[in-house]
Amino acid sequence: MIKIAVDAMGGDYAPGEMVKGAVEALKKKEQVHVILVGQQDRIEKELKGYAYPADRLSVVHASEVIETGEGPVNAVRKKKDSSIVVGMNLVKKQEADAFVSAGSSGAILVGGQIIVGRIRGVERPPLAPLIPTQKGVSLLIDCGANVDARASHLVQFARMGSIYMEHVIGIKHPRVAIVNIGAEEEKGNALVKETFPLLKACEDIHFIGSIEAREIPRGEADVIVSEAFVGNVILKLYEGVGATMLSMIKSGLMSGFKSKIGALLVKPALKETLKAFDASQYGGAPLLGLKGLVVKAHGNSKSVEVCNSILQCVTFKEQQINEKIKECLQPNKEQEQKEQ
Amino acid sequence: MIKIAVDAMGGDYAPGEMVKGAVEALKKKEQVHVILVGQQDRIEKELKGYAYPADRLSVVHASEVIETGEGPVNAVRKKKDSSIVVGMNLVKKQEADAFVSAGSSGAILVGGQIIVGRIRGVERPPLAPLIPTQKGVSLLIDCGANVDARASHLVQFARMGSIYMEHVIGIKHPRVAIVNIGAEEEKGNALVKETFPLLKACEDIHFIGSIEAREIPRGEADVIVSEAFVGNVILKLYEGVGATMLSMIKSGLMSGFKSKIGALLVKPALKETLKAFDASQYGGAPLLGLKGLVVKAHGNSKSVEVCNSILQCVTFKEQQINEKIKECLQPNKEQEQKEQ
Repeated sequence: MIKIAVDAMGGDYAPGEMVKGAVEALKKKEQVHVILVGQQDRIEKELKGYAYPADRLSVVHASEVIETGEGPVNAVRKKKDSSIVVGMNLVKKQEADAFVSAGSSGAILVGGQIIVGRIRGVERPPLAPLIPTQKGVSLLIDCGANVDARASHLVQFARMGSIYMEHVIGIKHPRVAIVNIGAEEEKGNALVKETFPLLKACEDIHFIGSIEAREIPRGEADVIVSEAFVGNVILKLYEGVGATMLSMIKSGLMSGFKSKIGALLVKPALKETLKAFDASQYGGAPLLGLKGLVVKAHGNSKSVEVCNSILQCVTFKEQQINEKIKECLQPNKEQEQKEQ
Repeated sequence: MIKIAVDAMGGDYAPGEMVKGAVEALKKKEQVHVILVGQQDRIEKELKGYAYPADRLSVVHASEVIETGEGPVNAVRKKKDSSIVVGMNLVKKQEADAFVSAGSSGAILVGGQIIVGRIRGVERPPLAPLIPTQKGVSLLIDCGANVDARASHLVQFARMGSIYMEHVIGIKHPRVAIVNIGAEEEKGNALVKETFPLLKACEDIHFIGSIEAREIPRGEADVIVSEAFVGNVILKLYEGVGATMLSMIKSGLMSGFKSKIGALLVKPALKETLKAFDASQYGGAPLLGLKGLVVKAHGNSKSVEVCNSILQCVTFKEQQINEKIKECLQPNKEQEQKEQ
């Protein structure tokens, strides 16, 4: 049985959509046990609306909620009985294999590092969302956890990301690229220039060189390595340009009689197309390199994304991703010891 | 008379569209004199197709062409008779007020700095393209000229960008924001944290704080300050996401009979909408802070963008932007001298 703790209180549609997503996941996978973490009365009220296998669902009470606006370090320290802190402690005590939350990103990143803790050898745990592309999805790693990263961090990101894409998403020999402002090896800022030859020298990944931001939506790489500031800009601009274009197209289509009729006819095809350009079907963003798994679901997650985030944790556990990460970072450590 | 040198040889559609755009500009503004720089026989052959005021158009021969793939520093040094080097020298010798090129970005950046030269007091000349937003356009500064910039550079970018948006684009008290990964002042990487208070202390700009990448397409700031690596990623991802979504929508609309009929009906409204999300009507990206003006037009520029880039140079000269930049950076220099 794989035990997944779910933050029932975090996210724009909590606790309703969180509970609904948890119940959906129980129905899809028989080997899952969900632990809903949060205010018990509110969770139980939501649960009354569903039929579910009661032996595979439990509730762990947490009286407090960390809000999105709160300073994350302080919030994690002070709100010991918040759903995020309680959920992470379940993972730490190995009472849960993973924790899924759509709550405060900052608190999840901080809590992951100081409560759950890093796997030995992992320098910085990266946040790695899947982003939609014309060909499917790519993993953007790191996307907010570690600003001002060093080259050695990026090399670990590349390796962990590669393992994730191969074994959780199922892409054989994932193509790894580093975000750069030109295709040539001599292009880039100091960090990219330092990292490039290190990635080139990694024998355990399929490094294809630099990727320009323009090529990311076309799906030209499976694992997109970048330091967190740039990664965060990419993730948010992706959402921003998409949303703005859609809203402009929609209001454009409503601007005249002829186009209104046309809009009715194209709506189903358009919807289908845009669905393909939506990564929520793959679940949330894993915070990789922790002793256990923490998944950050989008703040506006509905039950579909919550359910998929839970299923993603199951694959993660089944595929023994953390064991693979440990193994892969091991030879590197031996080498370092030799060099010293 | 304002003299604009135009690189007839640079760009995907050179010399045809460059020459055509130059002729269009001559017709739109009587105070413009265009100097077409490049291979004389090819330029003259193109010119035969048009009627134009011959007293306001001249040709300066340049036998060589710098290709996009060439190493820019070497190319500028060795190809002394290339259209880019010859055109920049016209600006240097004050035989032209500005130079417009759709050729090699690298060569234009290098040539601008080493041939045309910086205005006294300007630390680094930024490349500042206009990007389309839901509300109009914003200036993205810097976008490729100076990776690994320092805080003092970003402050100058903010000031120069502010002058440009106010006097060339006509936005009163342009809102200046710095690209960041959160709205709070304490967020960001080391560079942003160092730059933020400096921008806040600038009395000559209207600084509104941080901008997250998600808000850029909504037009939440007029001048978007960023170091070049991040700026370049933003510019290219903007193009990339837009192009990918459009191609997906197009193929989606062609996927069934009903939607094909609908597509015919919505086409004009869709075209109009997407035109609004296209910055080419405003011309190219100026390289600011030079003694003279250098404008980098998009590699795939057609005559419309070439013409608009020329008109943009006219406004730049008429509005005495360089004099305003000198003036605005002056008090800063005095202060520095006092501090020393």
